[in-house]
Amino acid sequence: MADDKETNKSPETGYVDLGFAKVDLARQKRQGMSEVIYGAGKTTEEIIAILETMQAHGQETVLITRLSEEAAGKIREVVPIRYDARARLGLMGGIPEPDGIGTIVVATGGTSDIPVAEEAAMTAEVMGNRVRRLYDVGVAGLHRTLSHLDELREATVIVAVAGMEGALASVIGGLVSCPVIAVPTSVGYGASFGGLSALLAMLNSCASGTAVVNIDNGFGAGFMASRINHVGK
Amino acid sequence: MADDKETNKSPETGYVDLGFAKVDLARQKRQGMSEVIYGAGKTTEEIIAILETMQAHGQETVLITRLSEEAAGKIREVVPIRYDARARLGLMGGIPEPDGIGTIVVATGGTSDIPVAEEAAMTAEVMGNRVRRLYDVGVAGLHRTLSHLDELREATVIVAVAGMEGALASVIGGLVSCPVIAVPTSVGYGASFGGLSALLAMLNSCASGTAVVNIDNGFGAGFMASRINHVGK
Amino acid sequence: MADDKETNKSPETGYVDLGFAKVDLARQKRQGMSEVIYGAGKTTEEIIAILETMQAHGQETVLITRLSEEAAGKIREVVPIRYDARARLGLMGGIPEPDGIGTIVVATGGTSDIPVAEEAAMTAEVMGNRVRRLYDVGVAGLHRTLSHLDELREATVIVAVAGMEGALASVIGGLVSCPVIAVPTSVGYGASFGGLSALLAMLNSCASGTAVVNIDNGFGAGFMASRINHVGK
Amino acid sequence: MADDKETNKSPETGYVDLGFAKVDLARQKRQGMSEVIYGAGKTTEEIIAILETMQAHGQETVLITRLSEEAAGKIREVVPIRYDARARLGLMGGIPEPDGIGTIVVATGGTSDIPVAEEAAMTAEVMGNRVRRLYDVGVAGLHRTLSHLDELREATVIVAVAGMEGALASVIGGLVSCPVIAVPTSVGYGASFGGLSALLAMLNSCASGTAVVNIDNGFGAGFMASRINHVGK
Amino acid sequence: MADDKETNKSPETGYVDLGFAKVDLARQKRQGMSEVIYGAGKTTEEIIAILETMQAHGQETVLITRLSEEAAGKIREVVPIRYDARARLGLMGGIPEPDGIGTIVVATGGTSDIPVAEEAAMTAEVMGNRVRRLYDVGVAGLHRTLSHLDELREATVIVAVAGMEGALASVIGGLVSCPVIAVPTSVGYGASFGGLSALLAMLNSCASGTAVVNIDNGFGAGFMASRINHVGK
Amino acid sequence: MADDKETNKSPETGYVDLGFAKVDLARQKRQGMSEVIYGAGKTTEEIIAILETMQAHGQETVLITRLSEEAAGKIREVVPIRYDARARLGLMGGIPEPDGIGTIVVATGGTSDIPVAEEAAMTAEVMGNRVRRLYDVGVAGLHRTLSHLDELREATVIVAVAGMEGALASVIGGLVSCPVIAVPTSVGYGASFGGLSALLAMLNSCASGTAVVNIDNGFGAGFMASRINHVGK
Amino acid sequence: MADDKETNKSPETGYVDLGFAKVDLARQKRQGMSEVIYGAGKTTEEIIAILETMQAHGQETVLITRLSEEAAGKIREVVPIRYDARARLGLMGGIPEPDGIGTIVVATGGTSDIPVAEEAAMTAEVMGNRVRRLYDVGVAGLHRTLSHLDELREATVIVAVAGMEGALASVIGGLVSCPVIAVPTSVGYGASFGGLSALLAMLNSCASGTAVVNIDNGFGAGFMASRINHVGK
Amino acid sequence: MADDKETNKSPETGYVDLGFAKVDLARQKRQGMSEVIYGAGKTTEEIIAILETMQAHGQETVLITRLSEEAAGKIREVVPIRYDARARLGLMGGIPEPDGIGTIVVATGGTSDIPVAEEAAMTAEVMGNRVRRLYDVGVAGLHRTLSHLDELREATVIVAVAGMEGALASVIGGLVSCPVIAVPTSVGYGASFGGLSALLAMLNSCASGTAVVNIDNGFGAGFMASRINHVGK
Repeated sequence: MADDKETNKSPETGYVDLGFAKVDLARQKRQGMSEVIYGAGKTTEEIIAILETMQAHGQETVLITRLSEEAAGKIREVVPIRYDARARLGLMGGIPEPDGIGTIVVATGGTSDIPVAEEAAMTAEVMGNRVRRLYDVGVAGLHRTLSHLDELREATVIVAVAGMEGALASVIGGLVSCPVIAVPTSVGYGASFGGLSALLAMLNSCASGTAVVNIDNGFGAGFMASRINHVGK
Repeated sequence: MADDKETNKSPETGYVDLGFAKVDLARQKRQGMSEVIYGAGKTTEEIIAILETMQAHGQETVLITRLSEEAAGKIREVVPIRYDARARLGLMGGIPEPDGIGTIVVATGGTSDIPVAEEAAMTAEVMGNRVRRLYDVGVAGLHRTLSHLDELREATVIVAVAGMEGALASVIGGLVSCPVIAVPTSVGYGASFGGLSALLAMLNSCASGTAVVNIDNGFGAGFMASRINHVGK
Repeated sequence: MADDKETNKSPETGYVDLGFAKVDLARQKRQGMSEVIYGAGKTTEEIIAILETMQAHGQETVLITRLSEEAAGKIREVVPIRYDARARLGLMGGIPEPDGIGTIVVATGGTSDIPVAEEAAMTAEVMGNRVRRLYDVGVAGLHRTLSHLDELREATVIVAVAGMEGALASVIGGLVSCPVIAVPTSVGYGASFGGLSALLAMLNSCASGTAVVNIDNGFGAGFMASRINHVGK
Repeated sequence: MADDKETNKSPETGYVDLGFAKVDLARQKRQGMSEVIYGAGKTTEEIIAILETMQAHGQETVLITRLSEEAAGKIREVVPIRYDARARLGLMGGIPEPDGIGTIVVATGGTSDIPVAEEAAMTAEVMGNRVRRLYDVGVAGLHRTLSHLDELREATVIVAVAGMEGALASVIGGLVSCPVIAVPTSVGYGASFGGLSALLAMLNSCASGTAVVNIDNGFGAGFMASRINHVGK
Repeated sequence: MADDKETNKSPETGYVDLGFAKVDLARQKRQGMSEVIYGAGKTTEEIIAILETMQAHGQETVLITRLSEEAAGKIREVVPIRYDARARLGLMGGIPEPDGIGTIVVATGGTSDIPVAEEAAMTAEVMGNRVRRLYDVGVAGLHRTLSHLDELREATVIVAVAGMEGALASVIGGLVSCPVIAVPTSVGYGASFGGLSALLAMLNSCASGTAVVNIDNGFGAGFMASRINHVGK
Repeated sequence: MADDKETNKSPETGYVDLGFAKVDLARQKRQGMSEVIYGAGKTTEEIIAILETMQAHGQETVLITRLSEEAAGKIREVVPIRYDARARLGLMGGIPEPDGIGTIVVATGGTSDIPVAEEAAMTAEVMGNRVRRLYDVGVAGLHRTLSHLDELREATVIVAVAGMEGALASVIGGLVSCPVIAVPTSVGYGASFGGLSALLAMLNSCASGTAVVNIDNGFGAGFMASRINHVGK
Repeated sequence: MADDKETNKSPETGYVDLGFAKVDLARQKRQGMSEVIYGAGKTTEEIIAILETMQAHGQETVLITRLSEEAAGKIREVVPIRYDARARLGLMGGIPEPDGIGTIVVATGGTSDIPVAEEAAMTAEVMGNRVRRLYDVGVAGLHRTLSHLDELREATVIVAVAGMEGALASVIGGLVSCPVIAVPTSVGYGASFGGLSALLAMLNSCASGTAVVNIDNGFGAGFMASRINHVGK
Repeated sequence: MADDKETNKSPETGYVDLGFAKVDLARQKRQGMSEVIYGAGKTTEEIIAILETMQAHGQETVLITRLSEEAAGKIREVVPIRYDARARLGLMGGIPEPDGIGTIVVATGGTSDIPVAEEAAMTAEVMGNRVRRLYDVGVAGLHRTLSHLDELREATVIVAVAGMEGALASVIGGLVSCPVIAVPTSVGYGASFGGLSALLAMLNSCASGTAVVNIDNGFGAGFMASRINHVGK
């Protein structure tokens, strides 16, 4: 019914206007990472158009989050991307050499939290970090957590991923002296209310040195951990 | 404007009718403990009338919960009761010899949880249980929890009292093989939402063998722990 | 993109590390029951690997909760398990002779609550308890509840399973002197909000001697009831 | 800063306009009862002005709800009213002879629910109903409820007032064949969330023939019960 | 794994025990209507078994609520029932002659509320009431409401069915002097939160003489309206 | 089972009664726009009948919101409509010449908000407004917002459409002096709770001159913007 | 402990920096109204300092919202302000001549909503609008609403202020063709949840042409109404 | 009634047991900061006892959060502490020289957010950080934010403190490449729901590189910022 979409209006403002999206070309300079595409709610055509615009303007590494396997398949016919089904991440371009201060540990309470943890871990790797994974070390079996105390204490930053009651963040937070990013997951049922229970628990953690990202937001946690691991750089 | 209150209608039904209250005389037989008076929302006069009715019918031990210090003072002028200001508990009659299976441990995450814990501990003592208190053993300093492992493992039942993120219940639940009663407290602020955060966390505990009572319900936890400690008796 | 999973790292710590899971071999000693597998969110391959690891280390009885019929079929091609579709439970190994103090009664408010009740009842049986089922005895027809008063009063522990307004727990709690585990279910619609209504009602029960588990958590209720029925053993 | 209030603009429209209030003179004809004044949020001066307007226009009986004791004292200096502190009700004019179909029973779960119950009972009496009070008959002591079965079954309408888990409405609803108005109260603490728990439970009642009014709305329940008790009249 | 279901244990208690259900045969005497089957969460086999038990014991009219079209088809192969797809109601037996005091009006705010309204209207008809339907008379077009003022004022009871902001109940409640049963529906989106918005609005109605049932609970509203329309009979 | 639907009862009241719907013919005069059909929850047959009634009574332009692609196809076989799949809007009749005061700007935070924005933009166009679209100008890349400052400041009304944290409305609101209509969308996940997060943020906007419509309610925002753009006309 | 507050840093940026506040001097140009001071959470000293800074820079009219009577008294000793206790508004400077397009009507459901309505009305007057007040015209007495139909239809914008179920906005919205700003108030109790009930109802209004501001936000509604009444000016 | 508190049980475990508190002496080594006392819910006597224990064991710097002015006065009579009333912080011992990587910027949306911001800023200073304060730079006056762009971009970590809609965190997050800690405050009213609105907005921030702490948790944000500013040290 209407079509007033302007294209390529203002490259000098630092972005390219595709009408449905303004592709940000200055973010790498401004925020230390090139554009990340939030895949949910975008058509495959829109994602491809954004990727091609970025390629055309010399952006090498682009991450696509919350990308379905089906969409990844269609994109791959046009633009070369790698895809991880568990983390639902697509990646155009390569993974750089780690250049962070130290190591980021990504830990999960259980096996079911791994997809979110992988989103965090892979995001951090794409952003130039060395990552160590410690999965299924939840507090119901505290000896599993404690047997990894050395690895936890060597970390520069820790990403603690847990659903249900989210106690992992508090327990780890009490054991270490580095910053902890807590990621509540929607793993659970009933009164977990889609991750609300873990979210509230993590926000109320009695262990200082913890901050929280959105439910299932592995990407945000990995991004934040990378920023911390590059502080002052 | 109206007054259709009948009194003393039906002692043979097991209760005495005071109009504003039906005093239950059969509970001791039916439920193993004499009437407990929920003090909140009752006038001092009403509480005294109930106590006197119970005395007159031979009930020896009566617990009054959520009793303000001021009300306790007024009651004491008429009926001899003991009062604990921290737990806001009044007690008519004596504390019996412990006759339970073993020991009930009452543990708290922090110092601010102690009033609720004392309500639980004293209720259990009044009901004939040996109680051991482990206060301020929260997960932010895990070595404090772990240094009491022996006492925790010797317990018949454990009451775990914690506010904020309520992780204590999960951590203890993962360390022992006895039943754990989790009591969320309203200790906290902001997103603790008056104890909701701890409540949800405890309901979602990944440690099996845990059940939960209402926020700040020390009485209910002590009562439940006593029942468990008298199972089969 | 990354693969730093170590396997079989530390049998001496009491668990076997499969990377995606740390299989707990010491739980039977520590918590009185061998590992229980939470089936939701795990792939069939992961469940099979955990079962095989347990078998290899001499664990005889393993329960798998929230297991879909389809997954159960695939598992059965590799590891011998029994499966109950209504309770969505899988079981490797046999059901032991009951060795608890007395009998666990599992009661439901209605017919639609039976799947959750069966999860509780079967969990308790697997853990060595004699179980009596009283189904569809909800308070809308109080004579149904009252006609089972003898069975309720003979119980060592009662598991009360109800959705909608969850009044069953309060009514039973007022009639007996044994511990009652209340299980809210998601049965209902509209303002039942997926079981929240029953959950809140049960937490606020005016009948003392009641504690609550998560919505639809039949497993947790059966586990807790078993612990209570083995107290002091 | 502004003053555009018109007074006495349109008596022929059925109301008198006081600027801050439009006093409804036609309600008695339209709705079967003269104006009721919701006392909360009105100044004493406003209430007096409304009462005087009504008097001047021949309205005899006016109920004032949620009236503080202090305000009642001030009003009484100007307009003759009766006041009940427990129900926080003021009444100008007399109580009529009962002319309803039968008897309204007002029942409460506990003693703390009585203020709300009295608001219901007195409202019904002011509207011309015979009222029977059954207080403290909650489900934790079911024999107390059942010993009043005859009075419950003789009622034309029942108002069931309860806080905490609100199970009273379901239990009574299952025992009788007359309409039941359920009134949740804010009695309770913690997860009662100011009466939300009882409200949800009553809305989800498995007993048919029950409808619910707002938390602590004794007036609304008494009004509705009166309408039912005058159906077809 | 277990099978302790007893059948036909106690006909003299007023019900027949099918194990998964206790079929209530005394309800017609006790509550004025024979058993109603809540169809959700029951298997077709269970529903058929209950219907056959009732038939065998002389129950003539049985209503089945929340019955899917598919289940109705299967049931009809065994037991003769009528089925209304819009209201998702099944009916065994005939509709009796109206014997209530007057007429029940069922009104809806919009067209999308009709399925819930039909559940109410048909339930009332099955219970012996004359019913008048006024559909799509919501407050956004107030002249539509007002043009039916006569029919509204002639009613003995009104069932007001509305989603979104649920204002219909308040507007009708202010116009009439008979009891109004308000039924919030889940019609709406966004901040209607599945009917919560309409539910809260109806509970807070400033029009006296209104009481509320659960979201989408047409059956409960029709049942309550019938009870009111038979008061004193 | 029942059929008391009257048709075409009262054309003189300004509407035609189809039984399931009262088609409002006077709205164009009363509210400045002919009937809008809320497509959700109506059958295709009902929508067609309403459209035909309107056509027969000379209504030229009718908008159908929340219309599925499948339903649109069926309707088009009978009544000529245009359909936009992204906005899920159907339109019978033509788009009029713009006659508003100035231009309405519709802005979105991201690409995923475009369907809601298109519903707003197209509704405004159908109601006689000139519309300018500014898509993907969210605050995470503030330079994108700021590069459109001139267009924002030239607007008569702005519709700000955003999900997640909904900050777009506050940022725009602080930059302009025209009214801003904020539309929260359900774009997001986890703690966005289906748009609740954006809704609350917009309601709490620290920028004056902002008002909010329901989550995803593009139609309502476009309608409101049109009214503002025609104020005094 | 620390003191790095800079003062008067950058007048050329359009504001004066007082350390605790950046006083915005450009808002009058940018947003059409000089700074408004949100009084809650500021000390009297801070408010005085801001007022004096504004005076010194030639700002004539400044509104202070949510100002307590006590604070107003102290401020008046230093800076000449007018104060309205009911609306809790302070005003430095005079009220301008109305220069808007037409008249703003401010309507309330009841008498208790007047403080919020006055905040709206007086804000609009301060911003140069003619305002007409229609108080206590709620839907429980629809004839009161309808007797003002002419005044409602003559308005350029309507501010509808209501608590409890908030139906006023929908009813007015269905009667007029101008924009309606709905203001939910916290008037009510129980399930009104501090205004949440009215807020949700207004967001879900079935009457198009309505937008909503925060609970009790009379200022925001008056501000928005003024902007609409000055559109295109 | 009971007194089983053991004192000074196990100095070798790293803490001193005062019965009501286990004073952690190893935290400085384990977590990089000596014990912090959460003042809320502790008696003045308890706080003094903890401070004296710490002094006796050589802990020099101890922070007391959420300390009332009255309690601070009493403590100062026994133990020398400094007190800041706005931030409600007490401090025993001195503030160390800054030894962090760079500068922490603490920014607020408005003046009312300053108490929380000061808690953050002073905590960071006590932990050895250089802190720059930017107060009242909220998004409603974006030029205030943008005029501090240099200071924001020079920061190592930013703490963004805001109530109401909490948009400050997103706007700052989009402008910088360092980690941002977002602190929602309870500043606001109505639908801010005690800070919930700002909390949700910050969790859903579309700007990557942001993590969130509890509502009003200035201490937690300052602590986290300090950890980040000392990463790798």
